[in-house]
Amino acid sequence: MNYDLIVIGSGPGGYVSAIRASQLGMKCLVIERSELGGICLNWGCIPTKSLLKSAQIFDYINNATEYGINIDGQILPDFEAMVRRSREIAANMNKGVQYLFKKNKIEVVEGTGKLIADRKVEVTKHDGTTEIHEAPYILIATGASSRQLPNLMQDGEKIIGYRKALTLDKKPENMIVVGSGAIGSEFAYFYNTIGTKVTLVEYLDNVVPLEDEEVSKQLGRSFKKAGITVMTGTEVVSADTSGDKIKAVLKSKKGEQLLETDIILSAVGITPNIENIGLRSSGVEIENGKIKVDKYYSTSVSGIYAIGDIVAGQALAHVASAEGIVCVEKIAGLNPQPLDYGNIPACTYTSPEVASVGMTEKAAIENGYKLKIGKFPFTASGKATAAGHRDGFVKLIFDEKTDLLLGAHLIGANVTEMIGELVTARKMNATAQDLISAVHPHPTMSEAIMEAAAAANSEAIHI
Amino acid sequence: MNYDLIVIGSGPGGYVSAIRASQLGMKCLVIERSELGGICLNWGCIPTKSLLKSAQIFDYINNATEYGINIDGQILPDFEAMVRRSREIAANMNKGVQYLFKKNKIEVVEGTGKLIADRKVEVTKHDGTTEIHEAPYILIATGASSRQLPNLMQDGEKIIGYRKALTLDKKPENMIVVGSGAIGSEFAYFYNTIGTKVTLVEYLDNVVPLEDEEVSKQLGRSFKKAGITVMTGTEVVSADTSGDKIKAVLKSKKGEQLLETDIILSAVGITPNIENIGLRSSGVEIENGKIKVDKYYSTSVSGIYAIGDIVAGQALAHVASAEGIVCVEKIAGLNPQPLDYGNIPACTYTSPEVASVGMTEKAAIENGYKLKIGKFPFTASGKATAAGHRDGFVKLIFDEKTDLLLGAHLIGANVTEMIGELVTARKMNATAQDLISAVHPHPTMSEAIMEAAAAANSEAIHI
Repeated sequence: MNYDLIVIGSGPGGYVSAIRASQLGMKCLVIERSELGGICLNWGCIPTKSLLKSAQIFDYINNATEYGINIDGQILPDFEAMVRRSREIAANMNKGVQYLFKKNKIEVVEGTGKLIADRKVEVTKHDGTTEIHEAPYILIATGASSRQLPNLMQDGEKIIGYRKALTLDKKPENMIVVGSGAIGSEFAYFYNTIGTKVTLVEYLDNVVPLEDEEVSKQLGRSFKKAGITVMTGTEVVSADTSGDKIKAVLKSKKGEQLLETDIILSAVGITPNIENIGLRSSGVEIENGKIKVDKYYSTSVSGIYAIGDIVAGQALAHVASAEGIVCVEKIAGLNPQPLDYGNIPACTYTSPEVASVGMTEKAAIENGYKLKIGKFPFTASGKATAAGHRDGFVKLIFDEKTDLLLGAHLIGANVTEMIGELVTARKMNATAQDLISAVHPHPTMSEAIMEAAAAANSEAIHI
Repeated sequence: MNYDLIVIGSGPGGYVSAIRASQLGMKCLVIERSELGGICLNWGCIPTKSLLKSAQIFDYINNATEYGINIDGQILPDFEAMVRRSREIAANMNKGVQYLFKKNKIEVVEGTGKLIADRKVEVTKHDGTTEIHEAPYILIATGASSRQLPNLMQDGEKIIGYRKALTLDKKPENMIVVGSGAIGSEFAYFYNTIGTKVTLVEYLDNVVPLEDEEVSKQLGRSFKKAGITVMTGTEVVSADTSGDKIKAVLKSKKGEQLLETDIILSAVGITPNIENIGLRSSGVEIENGKIKVDKYYSTSVSGIYAIGDIVAGQALAHVASAEGIVCVEKIAGLNPQPLDYGNIPACTYTSPEVASVGMTEKAAIENGYKLKIGKFPFTASGKATAAGHRDGFVKLIFDEKTDLLLGAHLIGANVTEMIGELVTARKMNATAQDLISAVHPHPTMSEAIMEAAAAANSEAIHI
């Protein structure tokens, strides 16, 4: 037996697990059917952030006069160049993983992995040949794919998923984005900013519907102000792609309406990649469409582990990475803390950005807490004003009884970089008083955290 | 007696104290000789951040092609418009303080305050008339002024301070900035970005000399790369302003050299405003050029308090505000925690930004700690790469014995928004392990905090 650990899938779950395992002295083999780094690095988190940065700068340039800069000429967003930049950045990060694998002496087989008997994995390589590898520990980290809606089957041309949305040949004239989670909202923001006429369709009552309601409503308002047609409480019941334009039928409480569009981006969630990887024959138990694991990610079969989008818990890159680290540390005989799924941040990189951790107001009330809520708007922040980013607020939710921080809900510029503080605060059991008396630097937007905590005690200074 | 508290000075120390005191039921009078909000709001923190945002956007526009945006025409920084914007933003914030004062029923007298006997303050108004007010508690918050060097006396025309640097009529062709603390560095970055030929002169061995040496060196390199002439270990021995150009003589180990320039900006620190405010006649004790206070900011005279730049401790806006809150809460009979001066963040809003809290590596060693240091470069950050901001790093210093975070030193984009987490972490006695297992969102630059902590344990994933 050549390896201590075989990892199937090299996304942020798999590659991080392999690196950590290798640091702990395990000899690792990683099986990857596509690109190292997985969807996140090649087709998700990273290239989208590149496009969104281009959009942000395009936005700045269009508002340059406000900042005292005159542009005497035309401003032309070069869609192809933006896409090219995003591909180059993804390629660059992919090379980074290759470098880390080499450094950590992690081996890679390109192909599709499948569990077979006796802790063995069969790899079908791209040329059709197969090889079998075995190890005492096997970690499944196969991730997820864009979820297909039966009445909106992705054809990769007119009805597309996130992957194609990252590499369109040209900027569409108009686009319907179906689903307003992070992926849908980010693409809606990007395409709208560079000039596509975007309609964002959300089945639930608000965009980013998993966020605190006040944040969702604020993002909805910002989107509308930016020119996105936001249709909540609406679903796409059919899409006829036979003609030149797609004829989409949208249904809401008001009835049905027909909308013509060039492209429909389906962003209605993901489906765990648990088919055709030998789970059934290996006896790995499935529960609610995901692999059943214990708190150290052991499946029902000894020696077989699973992490990331294929197990319960938030389907987020940082969750997969954190799970992978806990999992391999446990395998290596360390004593890692199980992951606290109640303290996982979520970010949406639109403008304004959205970031949150812990319970929403609604969830906290449903859980029986008596709340103390503090809110601070960025309109009252000197730094936000100086930067021209006055949209948004910080909303903090505390348990009235214990003063503990239960949840944090932020919308505004840079809040995706500010949420880390609140993750750490919750981890350390910080109270409102702790956040009030942590001296935040002036002038920053992070002062709004201190002020929101103070607002919960009716002692905010600047509102 | 009409008032419970008289506050002399309405900077971030004074106005925050008055608001908090008013929340606690005190009737407050604030005496201000110039603008509400003081230097910070009118001539410091806020208007500089406005100019720096203009510079950042100008930078983005000049690099637009990198982000896939073509500009077919000329890009013209409009210096006057940038200055106008910064003045408007300061005016806006000033109105904000007026609003807060009205809301909190705080009265204001415009004029220069001076302590006279029996807890009385005499105010000399701008028309020369005087009035006397009294209160059981008097809080001195008179702030500081730009320090004058004898061989570089500011004339407000050719040799200027920060205030004039915010309102020059036109962009200078060239400029010598003397002193590379936050103020000097920020102006050097701003003027260099918009096209002034800037020479930054620092007496000590590195720019931002109070920062950790690695950070200082990195900022020096970034400045040089951006085109600033950085002269460390150098002083300006004389400046002849009699001609059209200033003839400045600079002295370093290599000898003396003559430099001609249009403007010299003197940014060599501040002098506390403790003259002519009646301290001596009131018997208020001075120590090392500052007012001597206890940990609740009581001076040697009962009933007279002092906060901000005129007392020991970092001369920073957020320190003055925090001191003011502690001071008035104590006066009101609450039991506030004394300020932890070892946990005060400092920020420099250049590009890259600099932010730090706690001990530098050198200070920690001098204090006898055995260290565990972790560093994570933004070149290895996916978000930094996608944003085009790969300069800089996070450096965290832990006590090897206790695993506690002793100091954090960050340089890079947005680090001024990231440092809040480390202030809160230190306040909560976070260890390296705590920061490693706080799940930071992907992809953010804040992941570098988690990775730097992991690096201190030799378990960083991405380096």
